[in-house]
Amino acid sequence: MTDVDSSANADLPIGVFDSGVGGLTVVRALMQHLPRERIAYFGDTARVPYGIKSDATIAHYATQIAEFLLARRVKLLIIACNTMAAVAARTIADLAPVPVLDVIAAGAAGAVAATRRRRIGVIGTLATIHSGAYEQAIRRLDEAAHVWSQPCPLFVPLVEEGWFDHPVARLTAQEYLAPLTAQSVDTLVLGCTHYPLLKPLLQDVVGAGVTLVDSADAMAQQTDVLLRAQALQRRGDDRVEHQFFVTDVPQRFQKVGEQFLGHALAPVQVVRL
Amino acid sequence: MTDVDSSANADLPIGVFDSGVGGLTVVRALMQHLPRERIAYFGDTARVPYGIKSDATIAHYATQIAEFLLARRVKLLIIACNTMAAVAARTIADLAPVPVLDVIAAGAAGAVAATRRRRIGVIGTLATIHSGAYEQAIRRLDEAAHVWSQPCPLFVPLVEEGWFDHPVARLTAQEYLAPLTAQSVDTLVLGCTHYPLLKPLLQDVVGAGVTLVDSADAMAQQTDVLLRAQALQRRGDDRVEHQFFVTDVPQRFQKVGEQFLGHALAPVQVVRL
Repeated sequence: MTDVDSSANADLPIGVFDSGVGGLTVVRALMQHLPRERIAYFGDTARVPYGIKSDATIAHYATQIAEFLLARRVKLLIIACNTMAAVAARTIADLAPVPVLDVIAAGAAGAVAATRRRRIGVIGTLATIHSGAYEQAIRRLDEAAHVWSQPCPLFVPLVEEGWFDHPVARLTAQEYLAPLTAQSVDTLVLGCTHYPLLKPLLQDVVGAGVTLVDSADAMAQQTDVLLRAQALQRRGDDRVEHQFFVTDVPQRFQKVGEQFLGHALAPVQVVRL
Repeated sequence: MTDVDSSANADLPIGVFDSGVGGLTVVRALMQHLPRERIAYFGDTARVPYGIKSDATIAHYATQIAEFLLARRVKLLIIACNTMAAVAARTIADLAPVPVLDVIAAGAAGAVAATRRRRIGVIGTLATIHSGAYEQAIRRLDEAAHVWSQPCPLFVPLVEEGWFDHPVARLTAQEYLAPLTAQSVDTLVLGCTHYPLLKPLLQDVVGAGVTLVDSADAMAQQTDVLLRAQALQRRGDDRVEHQFFVTDVPQRFQKVGEQFLGHALAPVQVVRL
């Protein structure tokens, strides 16, 4: 790659994709840590949630989305959806001519860095947990780590209902997390992009002694490292414009989207895949 | 229509469709009330849930499914999904050359028959409730009826988690139903095919004085009336074979499907739309 190519590519956006709005927690972290970078976000809001679909369907949808973003030119692809990362990270890496990062690899690295006694808990959707992807990713980095996993299928609907600190959310969290606290985990990976919105509640339920690893933050750090390593950081201080693509504009989309992003959503384009 | 045509058509299956497995509660009621009828069921398990999608997307998907079933020949179409009935019943009726029944019309008729003081509560998904379809359908039958509606977005995930009588389900039901019991409704329409699985809990929360209307039962009764009226009842006592089509075979599909149907699912064919 010549210098000219590299600086031309550096100006391209980072492609971030998710099954819905959850990946906006990753976009939010990227905007905070890397404010000069342009982002092209794709949320498959017509077909969300992925966590209950079969592996074949998830891989098929993930491929369609990656191809859409690659056709519009991006310098890096980020799989912000844990379910897609668990099932289709390899498929995407094989087809993409640009680097691919995924939230599971990022969360696993964050967990290994944070744990003090190598006792790590992981929570996520059914598909993410059943895939064993976090466990494998953590063991690849530290084969002596102990990992306990727990699917929490009600957390996504609780977040979408806005019940971040509701007694129902607390009771649900107590039930889901009991098997992990019984194992005295010292680190808990929030293995779903929706879960950061439950962070204060989850911290309260597991206690202050447990470090919560938010894979959105871990992803922003990994992105920073990769862009530096490949001289792909965007320079210049002209106004940064982001693009948001969705496959549907569901009920309460703006409200839910803003909760995830932390501020108003820029204009959103609806596309059909 | 000649007698020959009519008896030939009588042998065709009833087409029943839903966004996922929920419509199996309607299939179950049909099997109990009309054991000679053949059923062709379509569950759009790859794209479930519909309750959070836009009206345009719901109508588009509903049309695809109705056309699929019509192409395979059915004598009657049943929209077993409240969300599709709320948004797309008219669209489907316009395109179908056979009669179309939908769960909202059936549930509304059941509610008007059951209420003693014309104070009716309706619960359902966000899309169903926001459409106002139950309210309109009830008022068309009895314009003096009072209707109060409440979206219950957490009930579907609670049912899919199998927490039918869990403290979390009870607390959630108490919160959702409080505004309806405050209005002293005497009848409560379960406006979502998932909700019959929560029936004992809901009855307990609203009290024995409130009649629960299960639209699956109401639908089986309406189907019986329609088939008699049009001389479309299937005769003969040869073995009845049903067909099940889905767009995906998700995690725990057999288990969840059996909970809805009440017994083992027959072989299921996966189709892509």
